[in-house]
Amino acid sequence: MANDELRSLICDLAKSFYDLGWVSGTGGGICIRDGEHVVIAPSGVQKERMRPEQMFTIALDGAIVSRPADPALHPSECSSLFLKAINLRNAGAVIHSHSIHAVAATLLFETEFSISHLEMIKGIQGMSYHDTLVVPIIDNTARECDLAGALEDAILRYPAAHAVLVRRHGVYVWGDDWVRAKTHAECYEYLFRAAVEMRRMGISTRFEGA
Amino acid sequence: MANDELRSLICDLAKSFYDLGWVSGTGGGICIRDGEHVVIAPSGVQKERMRPEQMFTIALDGAIVSRPADPALHPSECSSLFLKAINLRNAGAVIHSHSIHAVAATLLFETEFSISHLEMIKGIQGMSYHDTLVVPIIDNTARECDLAGALEDAILRYPAAHAVLVRRHGVYVWGDDWVRAKTHAECYEYLFRAAVEMRRMGISTRFEGA
Amino acid sequence: MANDELRSLICDLAKSFYDLGWVSGTGGGICIRDGEHVVIAPSGVQKERMRPEQMFTIALDGAIVSRPADPALHPSECSSLFLKAINLRNAGAVIHSHSIHAVAATLLFETEFSISHLEMIKGIQGMSYHDTLVVPIIDNTARECDLAGALEDAILRYPAAHAVLVRRHGVYVWGDDWVRAKTHAECYEYLFRAAVEMRRMGISTRFEGA
Amino acid sequence: MANDELRSLICDLAKSFYDLGWVSGTGGGICIRDGEHVVIAPSGVQKERMRPEQMFTIALDGAIVSRPADPALHPSECSSLFLKAINLRNAGAVIHSHSIHAVAATLLFETEFSISHLEMIKGIQGMSYHDTLVVPIIDNTARECDLAGALEDAILRYPAAHAVLVRRHGVYVWGDDWVRAKTHAECYEYLFRAAVEMRRMGISTRFEGA
Repeated sequence: MANDELRSLICDLAKSFYDLGWVSGTGGGICIRDGEHVVIAPSGVQKERMRPEQMFTIALDGAIVSRPADPALHPSECSSLFLKAINLRNAGAVIHSHSIHAVAATLLFETEFSISHLEMIKGIQGMSYHDTLVVPIIDNTARECDLAGALEDAILRYPAAHAVLVRRHGVYVWGDDWVRAKTHAECYEYLFRAAVEMRRMGISTRFEGA
Repeated sequence: MANDELRSLICDLAKSFYDLGWVSGTGGGICIRDGEHVVIAPSGVQKERMRPEQMFTIALDGAIVSRPADPALHPSECSSLFLKAINLRNAGAVIHSHSIHAVAATLLFETEFSISHLEMIKGIQGMSYHDTLVVPIIDNTARECDLAGALEDAILRYPAAHAVLVRRHGVYVWGDDWVRAKTHAECYEYLFRAAVEMRRMGISTRFEGA
Repeated sequence: MANDELRSLICDLAKSFYDLGWVSGTGGGICIRDGEHVVIAPSGVQKERMRPEQMFTIALDGAIVSRPADPALHPSECSSLFLKAINLRNAGAVIHSHSIHAVAATLLFETEFSISHLEMIKGIQGMSYHDTLVVPIIDNTARECDLAGALEDAILRYPAAHAVLVRRHGVYVWGDDWVRAKTHAECYEYLFRAAVEMRRMGISTRFEGA
Repeated sequence: MANDELRSLICDLAKSFYDLGWVSGTGGGICIRDGEHVVIAPSGVQKERMRPEQMFTIALDGAIVSRPADPALHPSECSSLFLKAINLRNAGAVIHSHSIHAVAATLLFETEFSISHLEMIKGIQGMSYHDTLVVPIIDNTARECDLAGALEDAILRYPAAHAVLVRRHGVYVWGDDWVRAKTHAECYEYLFRAAVEMRRMGISTRFEGA
């Protein structure tokens, strides 16, 4: 996909993430890898009203390769976090969501979110129905960039996970390309919500037999 | 309706099912019968972004009649399940939803979902307001195709049902044509959600007098 | 407004009511008065996909004035109920919704829904913030037309109400014209939902001081 | 931005607020400052169907500068309240929402809504993650204009707040310009909803350690 198309795609995806409640209040974000570069949205803008010419392109070490003409724009504060998933997991795209279901999950689970025996688990690469899906939860920090160390640590300690939850904040999700990253984001979102609903109904999220 | 129109219709319906939360994460699906053939969506693709040229046409025995040019596409994993409803019930269309309300219903009921005295029950063919609507619940399997035996058994044991719930997975719904299948899917969805809400409010889903 | 415009408006409104969850599964409906006639949608069709040429025009006594070319279409089963509000209250439009919040309200209240001290109450004609809003609840019947007697009785006994709830079914709402009927429907919907949420939070819907 | 564009923008924003459930039933509203003038929507109209030529322009003292041709239209009843935020806080835009989550928050908290340790707090100007976000709650009055005194008092007593909740009614939110006002409205909405969900899950909204 040409860099031009990637920029449009990011705007299109961000609009649909806004409709899902993942990036309201200018929060959250997305980046897509383009070879040795990464196309990434600016920080602190309305995610549902972005335009392709507002995107940044950065190198895999975070250096800015190209930037929008508007001098008021800065690359997403998530950049260093997005690059962790890209460099440590070879991710082709990373999505950061402030979903209220993800935040609720971080309030109901301690250091790991875990759930099993839900069909939607199969939407996560490498997982089957009977597997226990685990997502590490790291504590939030005052500044987003200060999350980088804990995020890297969680990524390394949980090689089967394609996401890291941040307590009282949201979730980072990735995949081999933008389609898989988005599919993962939808599946994790569903599973976080399912877990919250199950707890509310008094049903254990730990499977105890058919 | 011409095969061309059916392909477009499937894309259009899948987009609206995505907006309803039925087919997120590439899950769920739909097929529509076209005489002795069935038009069916591919497996593992983003259901809200499908294009007409990505559809498969299969025969009633599952043989592929025509396939999309893209060699990476495979017919929906639900094909053998869809064909059960088509061949055993003469269904004109089948919808498979991962609705979180359907899944919640399978966690609150044992082997049968049942509810009565809700107007929406009248939306299911053959049912009236005072009837008890019953939907069988089968257990999920690791692979979707392994559901076929239990699905067939449930279809045969519950001749009045137009749907089969799959525990911790979702629901298969059908009707004489695509309009009735969609209407059934909307009515069952509403009833599953109503049952969950009633339980949450401490109200029995078993009617006990006005 | 010309009859042509009214037909288009009904299709447009029905689509938005579908998006609000009021008319799924072909249920619910709407009619708008046009002088001595009433334009009304057909029965049992997908409300979000109606076309202007599918509308009926009936007289105030229910006689069909004009009908769509398609012989399979029948006027809404709600016709006799819609006409009650039109003839007894001089309503300019009537909306019938299967909203799950309306149904939940009929399960939490006995013979009357009542709530006070919510700003949204002011959206109902003739009501102020401190007033107690009351909506009568009638029991459902197997056939929609059999509701007519109880609906008429409720309309006459509750002259300040612009709606009648039907237990385990939904709500009929009207207003002097389509804008007021729609505004009333939105306000009642909000109040039904608010009441359900308040009960869930353990807060009385009966105001007990600031 | 030209006055023409502002009028269109208000209509566009009001439509999206309707989709979010903030301005149903003709309630709620928005105004945007244009130098020494304020562009403001009319009172009691369907907020999702407004047209640019229906807007009013008022001076900072509330005097009408220009009005729509339609003599039936009146400036928003919120005008005097909007002007409080504009004149006391130099707000560039003010949003009034009837969000059910805002109303629920006023039922769960006494005189102040407060929450801390949620990432979304950072979306409010001047706030960091560890800060306790506080929004004053004033009691509702029968007439919207009678809120002006209590609103002014709350604005003066809570200089760090960019919003005032009105019990059983909704919330007024502002910002330096329309983007910041909208961002604030989305963040407060999220935080009100999060607080309600936390209480429902039995989790304190008062942070008690990681």
